[in-house]
Amino acid sequence: MKYAVIGTGAIGGFYGARLAQSGQEVHFLLRSDYEYVKEHGLQIDSCDGSFHLDHVNAYNDANDMPKVDVVLVCLKTINNNHLDALLPPLLKDDTVVVLIQNGIGVEADVEALFPGIQLVAGLAFICSGKTEPGHVNHQCYGQINFGNYSCRDAARMQALLDDFNGAGIKAGQVEYLEARWKKAVWNMPFNGMTVALNTQTDLLLKNPDTRKLIHDQMMEVIGAARHLGVSGLDASFADLMIKMTDEMTPYSPSMKLDFDFRRPMEIHYLYTRPIELAREAGFAMPKLEMLEAELKFLEKNL
Amino acid sequence: MKYAVIGTGAIGGFYGARLAQSGQEVHFLLRSDYEYVKEHGLQIDSCDGSFHLDHVNAYNDANDMPKVDVVLVCLKTINNNHLDALLPPLLKDDTVVVLIQNGIGVEADVEALFPGIQLVAGLAFICSGKTEPGHVNHQCYGQINFGNYSCRDAARMQALLDDFNGAGIKAGQVEYLEARWKKAVWNMPFNGMTVALNTQTDLLLKNPDTRKLIHDQMMEVIGAARHLGVSGLDASFADLMIKMTDEMTPYSPSMKLDFDFRRPMEIHYLYTRPIELAREAGFAMPKLEMLEAELKFLEKNL
Repeated sequence: MKYAVIGTGAIGGFYGARLAQSGQEVHFLLRSDYEYVKEHGLQIDSCDGSFHLDHVNAYNDANDMPKVDVVLVCLKTINNNHLDALLPPLLKDDTVVVLIQNGIGVEADVEALFPGIQLVAGLAFICSGKTEPGHVNHQCYGQINFGNYSCRDAARMQALLDDFNGAGIKAGQVEYLEARWKKAVWNMPFNGMTVALNTQTDLLLKNPDTRKLIHDQMMEVIGAARHLGVSGLDASFADLMIKMTDEMTPYSPSMKLDFDFRRPMEIHYLYTRPIELAREAGFAMPKLEMLEAELKFLEKNL
Repeated sequence: MKYAVIGTGAIGGFYGARLAQSGQEVHFLLRSDYEYVKEHGLQIDSCDGSFHLDHVNAYNDANDMPKVDVVLVCLKTINNNHLDALLPPLLKDDTVVVLIQNGIGVEADVEALFPGIQLVAGLAFICSGKTEPGHVNHQCYGQINFGNYSCRDAARMQALLDDFNGAGIKAGQVEYLEARWKKAVWNMPFNGMTVALNTQTDLLLKNPDTRKLIHDQMMEVIGAARHLGVSGLDASFADLMIKMTDEMTPYSPSMKLDFDFRRPMEIHYLYTRPIELAREAGFAMPKLEMLEAELKFLEKNL
């Protein structure tokens, strides 16, 4: 299969380079790193073994790219407003678009732009950063789960899994809605609270007051998910997420890194959309609503 | 009437000095400023006219003070754990104790320590600060409202009003519970939110997201008050408080000043107690619960 990567950063650079290294044909769309990568290739420093891609199919304009079988969208969701221009040159009738992005509601919004498009959610569990032009530093993890949103082609879906696993990436298939909401159970409390209180995961859990608050917020997400018909989520999942986080090293989630580096935060898909979806279904998430307001204030008044 | 002031700071220093200047007998308990005030007196710089009290009845030990008719408790509530030692030397059978303090639940807790005590709530609307030892800077306002909690002596209550008004302080009488909760409608959102977002009242109201959040929090207080049987409070009061704050100069509430100067914050009586009282009556205040947790985290992790 032919692949395109939109957004060749910490995530897209890593997964795309691994696919290319394993022999897949991968076309990379770049912006600021285009000249550098065109000339020097991509360097992946990785806990699973470092490597260098000498020859990269690099583009700085989607219109120059070929149509592909699979598009991996690895943009921050704050740039999803560019998808109406970036996607069309890459799409054939049967192209599958994988959104390796954070949050709730991204698939519905892309589907509204491209009715009938075949979409798959990509849920990446990975610690990776772009350290300088053309350099990705993959620190740990790397697993990716795919949730089928509107892909009608089971063989294509299987080929996607096979290609990733063939590239040495642990890839699995999960139930779309359950997977998105399960990830939100961790993401919604920890991303925002580390920003709001300028801290890391460990201190939030060591303090009994914020530990309870994190748990309350997780229960809001679980309540919303259940209200929206998601099965397989109950209070024990909040306990599990807290226990897992207790065992992690002190961690700054992606939103905290965005905030620290004065980059825009993914407030819309991490907070606004799930809170709206829950409200439309008659379920209130008051503490996460408050967190959303605090984050919007902090983003404007920094 | 003989007066005692416990806590001779920005509030107790101002009201006590005004009463003394108008001819009342006032005995002041001091801690850090004792030596200075004993020797140099009290200087009140005031928008209503500055003055100096040359001879101050100053004490550094409550046991040396006379029994009085009225005690003005002007401590920060975080020091109320000292009242069990500070009050007894001052009390006669008919002494009235006025708690000029912030928050909800202070009277009930002092009554539990001293069953049968005659308590009055003092709600001060004043901008005043202690700038250096023995110096109070009264910037503006100054009105005080008294709410009868357990004073059985109507004549004593009237004498208190007369003495304050006679000292040039605008003093009125209000319904105790309504007054405490009305003040909480402003206090609970603005005190905590200026700390949580490190800002002032004006920016919280200029941002549409935090403006709505402040309104939501005010409605939580109003809902709790109504649930606890307080009359005279509805949504229009939230609108009024926001309109009033729109017209104020940018303001840092007392909790923000405490936080900025690394002093302990009055979280217990401004948040914990009213939230508990509401919860016991079956009413939840989720956004103010979250604010309470954030403040407790910030106090510990500063």
